[in-house]
Amino acid sequence: TGKKESFFQELVNILLSYVCKSFRRSSKVLDFHHPHQLREGLEGFSLELPDQPENLEQLLVDCRDTLKYGVKTGHPRFFNQLSSGLDVIGLAGEWLTSTANTNMFTYEVSPVFILMEEILLKKMQEIVGWSEEEGDGVFCPGGTMSNLYSVLLARYHFFPEVKTKGMTALPRLILFTSAHSHYSVKKSAAVLGIGSENVVVVKCNDWGKMIPAELESSILTAKDQGCVPFYVNATAGTTVYGAFDPLNAIADICESHGLWLHVDAAWGGGLLMSKRHRVKLQGIERAWSVTWNPHKMMGAPLQCSAILVKKRGLLKDCNQMCAEYLFQTDKHYDTSYDTGDKTIQCGRHVDVFKLWLMWKAKGSEGFESQVNKCLENAEHLFDKLKQRPDFELVFKSKPEHSNVCFWYIPPSLRNMSPGPERNRRLHEVAPKIKAKMMEQGMAMIGYQPLGDKVNFFRCVFSNPATQTEDVDYLLEEIASLGHDICIRAETDL
Amino acid sequence: TGKKESFFQELVNILLSYVCKSFRRSSKVLDFHHPHQLREGLEGFSLELPDQPENLEQLLVDCRDTLKYGVKTGHPRFFNQLSSGLDVIGLAGEWLTSTANTNMFTYEVSPVFILMEEILLKKMQEIVGWSEEEGDGVFCPGGTMSNLYSVLLARYHFFPEVKTKGMTALPRLILFTSAHSHYSVKKSAAVLGIGSENVVVVKCNDWGKMIPAELESSILTAKDQGCVPFYVNATAGTTVYGAFDPLNAIADICESHGLWLHVDAAWGGGLLMSKRHRVKLQGIERAWSVTWNPHKMMGAPLQCSAILVKKRGLLKDCNQMCAEYLFQTDKHYDTSYDTGDKTIQCGRHVDVFKLWLMWKAKGSEGFESQVNKCLENAEHLFDKLKQRPDFELVFKSKPEHSNVCFWYIPPSLRNMSPGPERNRRLHEVAPKIKAKMMEQGMAMIGYQPLGDKVNFFRCVFSNPATQTEDVDYLLEEIASLGHDICIRAETDL
Ligand SMILES: Cc1ncc(COP(=O)(O)O)c(C=O)c1O
Ligand SMILES: Cc1ncc(COP(=O)(O)O)c(C=O)c1O
Repeated sequence: TGKKESFFQELVNILLSYVCKSFRRSSKVLDFHHPHQLREGLEGFSLELPDQPENLEQLLVDCRDTLKYGVKTGHPRFFNQLSSGLDVIGLAGEWLTSTANTNMFTYEVSPVFILMEEILLKKMQEIVGWSEEEGDGVFCPGGTMSNLYSVLLARYHFFPEVKTKGMTALPRLILFTSAHSHYSVKKSAAVLGIGSENVVVVKCNDWGKMIPAELESSILTAKDQGCVPFYVNATAGTTVYGAFDPLNAIADICESHGLWLHVDAAWGGGLLMSKRHRVKLQGIERAWSVTWNPHKMMGAPLQCSAILVKKRGLLKDCNQMCAEYLFQTDKHYDTSYDTGDKTIQCGRHVDVFKLWLMWKAKGSEGFESQVNKCLENAEHLFDKLKQRPDFELVFKSKPEHSNVCFWYIPPSLRNMSPGPERNRRLHEVAPKIKAKMMEQGMAMIGYQPLGDKVNFFRCVFSNPATQTEDVDYLLEEIASLGHDICIRAETDL
Repeated sequence: TGKKESFFQELVNILLSYVCKSFRRSSKVLDFHHPHQLREGLEGFSLELPDQPENLEQLLVDCRDTLKYGVKTGHPRFFNQLSSGLDVIGLAGEWLTSTANTNMFTYEVSPVFILMEEILLKKMQEIVGWSEEEGDGVFCPGGTMSNLYSVLLARYHFFPEVKTKGMTALPRLILFTSAHSHYSVKKSAAVLGIGSENVVVVKCNDWGKMIPAELESSILTAKDQGCVPFYVNATAGTTVYGAFDPLNAIADICESHGLWLHVDAAWGGGLLMSKRHRVKLQGIERAWSVTWNPHKMMGAPLQCSAILVKKRGLLKDCNQMCAEYLFQTDKHYDTSYDTGDKTIQCGRHVDVFKLWLMWKAKGSEGFESQVNKCLENAEHLFDKLKQRPDFELVFKSKPEHSNVCFWYIPPSLRNMSPGPERNRRLHEVAPKIKAKMMEQGMAMIGYQPLGDKVNFFRCVFSNPATQTEDVDYLLEEIASLGHDICIRAETDL
């Protein structure tokens, strides 16, 4: 065990020096290699699984290599994903969680974590604006699962017989979500046996917000066709634009048609922590269920996502199977704390402790200033972009969330008039810059097309380590990588 | 950051001393408190979430308390769950994983982990016995999710239109699983919109193994009723008895009826690592899909579960939604390594690194001897129980897996003749002993009723730290707690 202890000591050194490096601007965000290069083994880093044990020294080398060829998602210049940052207290929480190595299904093996989950869920429900008597929920492995829960619960709420009889006992159900919503809504419909074609995609306005009148008419059309609308997903913070659907207007429509209103605040939920920004989610308290991912805007390490449900007891009714080997009813403690039967899982990882510890470390106010800062970074980027002739904003209006979408316009395209040819060439710019950026490894940002808009960059801020200097750096980096990009005209191809 | 560093140093001390304590026999497995006691705060341990930050010293106290009031699942006398033990290399792997804090959805943010997943899945498929050309898979958040995937994939394989049109486009589907199988099969049917009543529960023999003739006749009955059988789950290592269904006989039936054969080896999969024991899973290579949880018998920290799928490409066809913001097709690397569209999740935690590191540390042979040892402990317990007049085995035959099921018979029941009154009183024994055991905190074991058998203890071995002395201790503990238990006759109540 002396050997094991020095192994851990050395490992901790490796990990903490990785953490420091992640925050250092001079270090690379990534050291890119293609799959075949990594597979073939770089400087002796072999991924193959041996029959015989390897020694502890070799394991430490492997750990070092694993980090070396990975991506520093906590680097202040990592803008690639909604989840970024490396909160050291959250990290400490994860280390403790994995050391405790237990399971959320029953109180008897997770007494403290079960209570922490209860307290966190209550707090989040209170912040959403539900009353003392309302509210239930569970932490699940990601926002996609949380969204899946919402559809599952809505279906069960209106048609409880579905649990035993299945969808064949039901009329044709229809759900509604906006064109800019996350693909997990469609995925849920496919998984749950509703079918992705029974998800009606409601039109958005230019800013990516669902148009309530379009929702209303889609509902009426579905009813005319003999289908049964039951569920509407409104997004509070869309994945690409960061748009907030008009929750109150949507809630009015849901109310008048008796539909389940889910608010996917996986990305936007963090703004509820901010007195300045929470107004953007006005009406969220009218939701029947809410998805909120602390692993995005609040900077909790992956995975940390909550599904909040207004109606108490529904989760359990919908999901319980009463397995007697686990949920014995003759236990000596209050078995309402055995939460396992609320979930669609059996074993469940402890996702709450890191968030609980972060909350202790920052207080609600710490989350507030962290969120505010991310949005200030977005405004800073927006302001910079407005001033530059080599960039073009996707929107002229100030961002509502921390998403900022833009094109880099290489010299050869600057004087071209808008049209299909310019679009075709502009479409190739972002992928080429991204490829170069990844080879160089000094920053990382995502891009995508959307609707009629060709490939554009999407910068997102959720890492509190990011400063305005990093934002400025990003623009210079894109401009310098993009400057000598040659996008040939159709006729040159 | 100097403060943060000493915080981490202190945290590591706390965690490592917890690890040492977990292995020490003289330390308690748990320090039980009822929910209201913990909620009210014990000696200043408050779970409430503050508005203002707390200082680092307080956080360390909180961490210490969290561990203090938790359960030491790595303790050699924790027999309560299929997942137990605290593999220090696995733990090291989890610490690194949380430090890397990234996401499995794309190669660009998880190059190394994506390749490790590929290599682990390949290895596991090879061990299952599939050919080079076969095999696909993904790690998912628990065996329940893995089982859900199997039903989802089977449905899609036979009825690909379900993805877009939903279950209403399909005939009434029926799936089959044994009476002793895990409840996740029924739960999956409920979630997927098939309905739990469309799961036909096939009878088992006295040892908890599915009876092939019963399966055959259930299939014929379902067909006669105009339903469409499509899927059979066979369990390799049932949850309570540790029974292995006769895979070859079941595979023959599936073949003749053209049904999808899934093998739930969540618990039994580990035995594939052992030359001595893998014969119990003979025929598993004929499965169309396999669930295998390294977080159970192989001792990997939670969560670590794989769904293996024989037919390549099916996972992707079934689940992909082609979200362009994430799975851009114009990336500069081989995007077949972006595995996110194979899954029903979006963000996905890195569950593979700990297993990869453990495999490096032990080699396949290390897993083999670990599994063998757990089964030897089970045999030891079985042999002891056979000799004792104060215990009664649920089965007289040697255990096939590491599950050993038994009753403690208190003095007052020893001379009673079998019958309803003895059963009624025996049923109360295990819960009473367990309650006392938890109060004392020196060991932990589960119990349940099953079929016509009243509450019995189920001892399971998956912790390589457990020695025969711990097995002996458990029996003495149960006997001494049980000795003065007073189970009143009906007439006394
Ligand atoms: C046979 C079997 N299958 C599946 C599962 C579910 O595994 P998990 O708890 O990882 O969801 C279990 C859990 O005990 C099991 O025993
Ligand atoms: C709006 C929205 N909802 C849901 C999700 C899914 O969250 P997760 O990746 O945790 O599954 C995302 C992820 O980006 C999202 O942006």
